[in-house]
Amino acid sequence: MAVTAAPRPHPLAPLSEAEHVKARDAVAKLHGASESIFFRAIHVQEPKKADLQPFLEAEHKGTLTEETKRPPREAIVEHDVIRADRSEYINAIVNLDTGEVKTVAAPVPHQPYVTPGEFDHFNDACVNSDLFKKAMSEFTLPEGFEVCVEPWPYGPPNVDEKDIPRQMQGLVYAKDTRNKNPDSNHYGYPIPIIPVMDWHTKKLVRVERIATGGIGDELEAKVQSEEPVKLFENHKGCEYVPELLDYPLRTDLKPINITQPEGASFTIHDDGLIEWQKWRFRLGFTPREGAVLHDLHYDNRSVMYRLSFSEMTVPYADPRPPFHRKQAFDFGDGGMGRAANNLELGCDCLGAIHYIDVVNTEPDGSPSPGKAVVCLHEQDNGILWKHTNYRTGRAVVTRNREFVVQFICTLANYEYVLCYKLDLAGAITFETRATGIVSVTGIDEGKVSAYGNVMTPGVLAQNHQHVFAVRIDPAIDSYDGADSQVIVEESHGQKIDPKTNPYGNFYKIQREKVEKATWVDAEPRLNRLIKLENANKKNPISGKNLGYKVMAPVTQMLLCDPEGLAAQRAQFAQHNAWVTGYRDGELWAAGEFTNQSTKEIGGVADMVKRGDWFSDREANGATNGDAADKGKRSSPVVWSVFGLTHNPRVEDWPVMPVETFQIHIKPTDFFTANPAMDVPSTRNDASVLLGGSCCTTSSDKNKSGVQNNPLAHQQGSAATIDAKAAGANVDEKLSKRLSKTFNGLFGSKKEEVN
Amino acid sequence: MAVTAAPRPHPLAPLSEAEHVKARDAVAKLHGASESIFFRAIHVQEPKKADLQPFLEAEHKGTLTEETKRPPREAIVEHDVIRADRSEYINAIVNLDTGEVKTVAAPVPHQPYVTPGEFDHFNDACVNSDLFKKAMSEFTLPEGFEVCVEPWPYGPPNVDEKDIPRQMQGLVYAKDTRNKNPDSNHYGYPIPIIPVMDWHTKKLVRVERIATGGIGDELEAKVQSEEPVKLFENHKGCEYVPELLDYPLRTDLKPINITQPEGASFTIHDDGLIEWQKWRFRLGFTPREGAVLHDLHYDNRSVMYRLSFSEMTVPYADPRPPFHRKQAFDFGDGGMGRAANNLELGCDCLGAIHYIDVVNTEPDGSPSPGKAVVCLHEQDNGILWKHTNYRTGRAVVTRNREFVVQFICTLANYEYVLCYKLDLAGAITFETRATGIVSVTGIDEGKVSAYGNVMTPGVLAQNHQHVFAVRIDPAIDSYDGADSQVIVEESHGQKIDPKTNPYGNFYKIQREKVEKATWVDAEPRLNRLIKLENANKKNPISGKNLGYKVMAPVTQMLLCDPEGLAAQRAQFAQHNAWVTGYRDGELWAAGEFTNQSTKEIGGVADMVKRGDWFSDREANGATNGDAADKGKRSSPVVWSVFGLTHNPRVEDWPVMPVETFQIHIKPTDFFTANPAMDVPSTRNDASVLLGGSCCTTSSDKNKSGVQNNPLAHQQGSAATIDAKAAGANVDEKLSKRLSKTFNGLFGSKKEEVN
Repeated sequence: MAVTAAPRPHPLAPLSEAEHVKARDAVAKLHGASESIFFRAIHVQEPKKADLQPFLEAEHKGTLTEETKRPPREAIVEHDVIRADRSEYINAIVNLDTGEVKTVAAPVPHQPYVTPGEFDHFNDACVNSDLFKKAMSEFTLPEGFEVCVEPWPYGPPNVDEKDIPRQMQGLVYAKDTRNKNPDSNHYGYPIPIIPVMDWHTKKLVRVERIATGGIGDELEAKVQSEEPVKLFENHKGCEYVPELLDYPLRTDLKPINITQPEGASFTIHDDGLIEWQKWRFRLGFTPREGAVLHDLHYDNRSVMYRLSFSEMTVPYADPRPPFHRKQAFDFGDGGMGRAANNLELGCDCLGAIHYIDVVNTEPDGSPSPGKAVVCLHEQDNGILWKHTNYRTGRAVVTRNREFVVQFICTLANYEYVLCYKLDLAGAITFETRATGIVSVTGIDEGKVSAYGNVMTPGVLAQNHQHVFAVRIDPAIDSYDGADSQVIVEESHGQKIDPKTNPYGNFYKIQREKVEKATWVDAEPRLNRLIKLENANKKNPISGKNLGYKVMAPVTQMLLCDPEGLAAQRAQFAQHNAWVTGYRDGELWAAGEFTNQSTKEIGGVADMVKRGDWFSDREANGATNGDAADKGKRSSPVVWSVFGLTHNPRVEDWPVMPVETFQIHIKPTDFFTANPAMDVPSTRNDASVLLGGSCCTTSSDKNKSGVQNNPLAHQQGSAATIDAKAAGANVDEKLSKRLSKTFNGLFGSKKEEVN
Repeated sequence: MAVTAAPRPHPLAPLSEAEHVKARDAVAKLHGASESIFFRAIHVQEPKKADLQPFLEAEHKGTLTEETKRPPREAIVEHDVIRADRSEYINAIVNLDTGEVKTVAAPVPHQPYVTPGEFDHFNDACVNSDLFKKAMSEFTLPEGFEVCVEPWPYGPPNVDEKDIPRQMQGLVYAKDTRNKNPDSNHYGYPIPIIPVMDWHTKKLVRVERIATGGIGDELEAKVQSEEPVKLFENHKGCEYVPELLDYPLRTDLKPINITQPEGASFTIHDDGLIEWQKWRFRLGFTPREGAVLHDLHYDNRSVMYRLSFSEMTVPYADPRPPFHRKQAFDFGDGGMGRAANNLELGCDCLGAIHYIDVVNTEPDGSPSPGKAVVCLHEQDNGILWKHTNYRTGRAVVTRNREFVVQFICTLANYEYVLCYKLDLAGAITFETRATGIVSVTGIDEGKVSAYGNVMTPGVLAQNHQHVFAVRIDPAIDSYDGADSQVIVEESHGQKIDPKTNPYGNFYKIQREKVEKATWVDAEPRLNRLIKLENANKKNPISGKNLGYKVMAPVTQMLLCDPEGLAAQRAQFAQHNAWVTGYRDGELWAAGEFTNQSTKEIGGVADMVKRGDWFSDREANGATNGDAADKGKRSSPVVWSVFGLTHNPRVEDWPVMPVETFQIHIKPTDFFTANPAMDVPSTRNDASVLLGGSCCTTSSDKNKSGVQNNPLAHQQGSAATIDAKAAGANVDEKLSKRLSKTFNGLFGSKKEEVN
C-alpha cells in the first residue's frame, strides 16, 4: 500500500490516503455493532481563515519554519449512521493530530445529497418492486426493450407533503437491447411514470403517472385504458455512439496537433503549489465543488483567497405535476467533485497535459483513486495585444496564452465542462460549458407542447433554466481580505449643461461602496460593474484603489414564481450578484442542504438577512451589541450568478453542442501598467503558410467557367500603368505625397522576434 | 504586367487588377486638363440582389451555363475632382462590360472619409504652418524631442460652425528621438494643442489650445504665461517595442506549436468559393468594411446572404472643448479595409494559415497589392459536445473546430482584431477584439480627472465608448431572403395558478413577429432574443419555423445626450438592434457620410423612419399606394449593436490587452438534429501526458518541509485497508451494492476512436 509519509502537509493540501484512512478509522471506532455506517465522503476540513493567516504570511514572506504556528489539521467525515428506524446524516470533524472527533448531526428535516452509488441502489429497488411492475403493466414495450431507471433527487415536495422522510424519485426509460450495445441511448424512449422510493426502507412508496399530452390537453395524466398502451411504435433511435449511427462520420476533418516540444511553462511543486508565469496558487478538490483555487497570487501579490463554483439549480418549466419536483441542485444534491469524469488525453484535453488524481471514498470508508479528474494545460487564445506604428509599418504583437484548470462532470443525462483560466495580463476567467443529453419526457405522437420542444417524434425536451453561482473570496493585495471593499460602479450619461457639459458628450462614473451585505442586480444600461478593491492601498499612478473588476454575463435570473417552492429553495438564483460577510465554511449559495429542501436555508439570502457590514461601525452608526450569530463586521465575499434559459432547439438532440458562459475578473489599477508588456512577441516557427496549391483545388463545382480569383494568395504584382497614358491629368504633387498605400505602410516589416 | 485573363469573374468576386485598371481609365478619360483627380478607392460594385438571383439559383442547382443571366459587372470608383475653388467627391459606377460610366456627386455638405495617405499630408501642412509654429512657441520640449502630429477626422463641428468646408484636425505629441528608434512611443508626450486644416487649401485655419487641468479646474484651456511652458520635465517613457523596454522580457514562456501535418480541412476554389466542412461562402473585401461573407451556405442550404461589420463610433467623454469633436467613425471616417494590417505568419495567426491578398488603389488610380490582409485558418476551441454513460463509463467527446476569417485594422493609435468564425454545429460568430494604444491627452502633474484615468504621470486617457454595429442579411433556407421573418422571443415567468401553473415553475415563451422596420432594445430580464426565420418552411420534427437566433452581448448603448451632435450623428448606437427593410447598397449603420456629419443621414434610424414592412399588406391593413421612395414590403435586415464603455485602467497602458466581444448566431430548429453528431470523436495522438517529473520540480520556495502532494499525478494505488480491522460494523450489504465509486463509474473506458 503506497501511502507517502507526510508529517507536515500544507494546510490547504487535500488529504493523503493515510490521512483519509486515519479519519475513517476514528469515526468507525465511535460506532458499535448496533449501527451500520455508510461513508459518504472524507476530505480535508479547510482551516479557519484566521488560523491560516500566520502560516500563509510566513510562507509568502519566506519565513516558514517548523515552529510556524499552523492551523489544526482536520478531516471532515460525512456519513450516515443507519439505525433500525431511520438513517442519520452526520458530519464528523476529525483532528488528525490528536485523533479527537467532533460530530454534528444534520438537523431534521435536512436531507443529505445523493451519492452516485445510491443511483444503482434506486434502480434495483424499482425493478424489484411490485408497485413498479404493476405500473409497467399498463404499457407494452417493443420486443427487445428493457426498462432503465434514471435516479433523480426528490426535489421540492408536493403541496400535501410535510416533513416527509428521505426519498428519491426517478425518470423511467426503455432501452433497445437488440443492438447488443450497452451504450444504446435510452433517452429516446421515455416511459410516462415516476417511481418514488423511501431511502431508508429502500422500498417504493408510489409510482406516479405523468401526462403525455400537448397544447390544450389537461395537466393531469390520462386515465389508462383497459388495454396496455403500446409504446414507441414509431420512435426512431437517437444514438450518439459512433458505431450505432445510421449515417457516416465526417472523414474530411484533418488533425490539428498542439505540441510543446520544449515542455510546458508551468511547475507543480512537491507540496502542491502550482506556478505558471507570475501566477501561483494551490489546487483543492472537494466532493461538492470539484476544483477550487486557493491563495491565488500574481507576481507575489495576493489576488484571491479562494475561488470556487458554488451551486447551480436547474428547474424545469413543465407545470404538469409531478414535474414541479424536477429541479436539481447539481452541487448540493449530487456534487460536482463526485461526478467528475476521468479525463482522456487527446479527447478532453489537447496538447501537453498534466492530470490530477484525487482520493475518493468508498461506502466502507476506504480510499479509492479518482484518476485524472482535473487537467492542467496551457493554450493559445489568439492575440493578447498588438500595435502597429503606421508611420514605420512596425507591428508588435503578442499571443494570449492561458493556463487552464478544467474538470468535467456528468450528472446522469447531462455534462458540465467547468474551468478556471489565468492569463498573461493578470486576468482570471470562470468558464462553464453545458452539454450532454437534455432531459426528456414522452409526448403523444403528432402533438406539440407549450412546455418544451419536440426533439424526435414522441420525445419532448422541457424548457428549463441552469442558474449558476460562483463564489469569489477576494484578497486584493492583502492575505486575508480584511482590507477588501466592494464597489458598485456605474457610467451615467449627462444632459447638456453650458458650464459642465456644453456638447453633451460627458458621462459620469459613479461609485458606491457596499456598506452592508446585499444583493446586486445587473444593469447593463448603466454598465453596472462590481469592483473588488483594497480599501487601504492606492495605485501610485492613478491614485485609485487597487482593484479587480468582475465582468459577468448579464443573463436572465430564475423565472419560477417567487411564491413557489422552486424559487423559495433557490433564492440565490433571483439576483445577479450577492455580497455577503465572510464566515468560515460558508461556501454554498443555496445553503448546505438542498436535497428535498422546501426553502433555501443558510444560503446567500440568509447571509444577507444576517446583516453583516463592511465599513467601520462609526461610519455605519451601528451599535456594538451584536451577538456572535448576528451581523458583524466582516470582509466581503462576492457571489456572481448567471445562467442559461434553455428552451431546447432540435439541434440540442441527441447530444447538445456546448452553451458557454464566461466571467472575467480583470485587474483595474491593480498594476502600474499592462502586466503583459514583458511578453515576448516571438514568431512561432511551426506555423506554416498554405500556398495556393496546398488548400486550393480547381473546383468541380465550378461550372461557370469562372477562372480568376483575385483573392487567391498571389505575389501581389502591382499593375504598372501609366496614368498619363490613360489621358488623365493627375495631381502629380498630390500623388507624390500620397504615393504610399496604407497597406504598404502597415506591418511590412517583420514583427520583432525575441 | 501580370493580370490574369478573366472573361467571366464570379459576380461577387472582387475586381481583378485588369478590371481595376479598366475602371480607373474609364473615369480618368472623363476629366480634362483643368481637373486633377484624386483616386480614393476602386472596388467591385456588388450586384443588386434581384439581378443576382438567377445566377445564384443556377449556381446552387448546378445548372450554371454561359447563357445563365448575369448581373452587370460593375466597378465603383470613388474619387475627388480637385478644382481651383473646391474639391468634389464623386462615386462613379463603371460598367465593365460596356465601359459606360455613371457618376454621382456627394450632395453638399457631405464630406468623404479620410484616406491614410491624407494623414501624411496633414502632418506636412502642420509642421510647415506659421500658425502651428506660433502655437508651439508657447512650449519648450526637452532636448532631442520632435513634434509628431496624429491626424483625426474633424468630428462634429462646434456650435457656431455652419456648412463648413472639409476639414481635418489632429492631436499633437512629441517624440523622443534620443533613442534613435523610429518606433519610440510618442503617445507618452501629449502637447495641448489641436491644429485644424482646410482640406482643399491644405492650410491650417487655426490651432486650438486644450485644457490640461484636473478635478475642479475650468473646462477652458489656461491662458499661457509669457514664459514658454516646459513640457515633459518629469515624464517617464512608455515604450512598447521590446528593444526599448527598461525591464527584461519573460524567458519562461515555452512555445505552443499548432500544426496540421495532413494539411488544412478547407478548400479555396479557383473562382473564389471557400469550402470548409459543410460550409461554403464567398469572401469579399471592401475598403470600408474589410472582409465580408457572401452567400453563406451550410450543407447546400442557404443561411446568410451577406454578413459584415458595418460601423463603429468612438465618442470621448471629456466635456472640455474641443474634445467634443473627438468622435471617430472608424468605418465611415476611415475604413477598416484601408486600415487592414499585412498579417504575419506565426504572430497574428498560429497554425496552418492561408492568406488573402487584395488590390488597393493608389492616388493616381493604379492598383497596388495589399498583401495578406485576411487570414483563413482552423482552430480548436475546446469541447463541442460530450456525453458519458455513467452506467458503462463510456464517454464520447468531440472537439469544437472553428474556421476563422480574421483581419486586423490599425486606426492611428488603435487596433481592432475582427473575425468571423464558423463551427461544426452550424453556428456563426462575429468577434471583435479592441487593442492598441488608448488615446491620451496631457494632464498637469499630480492632478486626477473626472474625465479619464492617469496612465502615467502627466498623461490622461479619457473615458470613451466603442459602439459597434454588425449587419446581418439573412437568407434562411431561401436564396434571396424573401421568405425571411424576424421574431422577437421572450421568456416570461408566470404566477401560480391552480389550473395552469399549480407550483409556479412554468414560464411562457412569447413570440412577436416584427411587422415593420423598428429598433429593438435588449432585455435580459426577459431573455429577449432576435430570431431569423423562414416564414414558409417548418422544421419537420418540431413543427416550428426554420431559424437562427442572434445571441448578442447585452451592453451599454451610447451615453451622449441625445440632444447633442455626438448622439445625433450616431443614432444607430442608441439601441441594441435594428430591423430594417432590405435595399440594395444600404450597408452603413450610420449612413454613408459620417465624416464631419452633424446628423446620421441614411443610417438605420432613417431606414426605420422610412417605414418598410415585412408582412402582407392585408395582414397589415395598409394601402398599396406607396411611392417607390416610401416604405415598401421588404425582406428584413438585422443590425446588432454592442460595445464597450471604456473607462481606461492603468493596465491598458502603454498597449492594452484585448477587450473581446462575440455575437453568436445559432441554428434553432434549422436542422433535424445536432449537425455535429457526425463529427468523429477521434483521439488526438500528438497530445502528450506531462508526468510528475516533466513539469514538477522540488520547490525552492518550499521552506516548510512539506513533502507530500496528494494532487501530484500518482498511480492512484488504492489503500487496501480492512474495514473490520478498524473496528467498525459496516453494512456489508450496502457496501457491496455501493462498492463502485462514481469516478470509477465515469469515463474509465477509453473514448471511442474512429
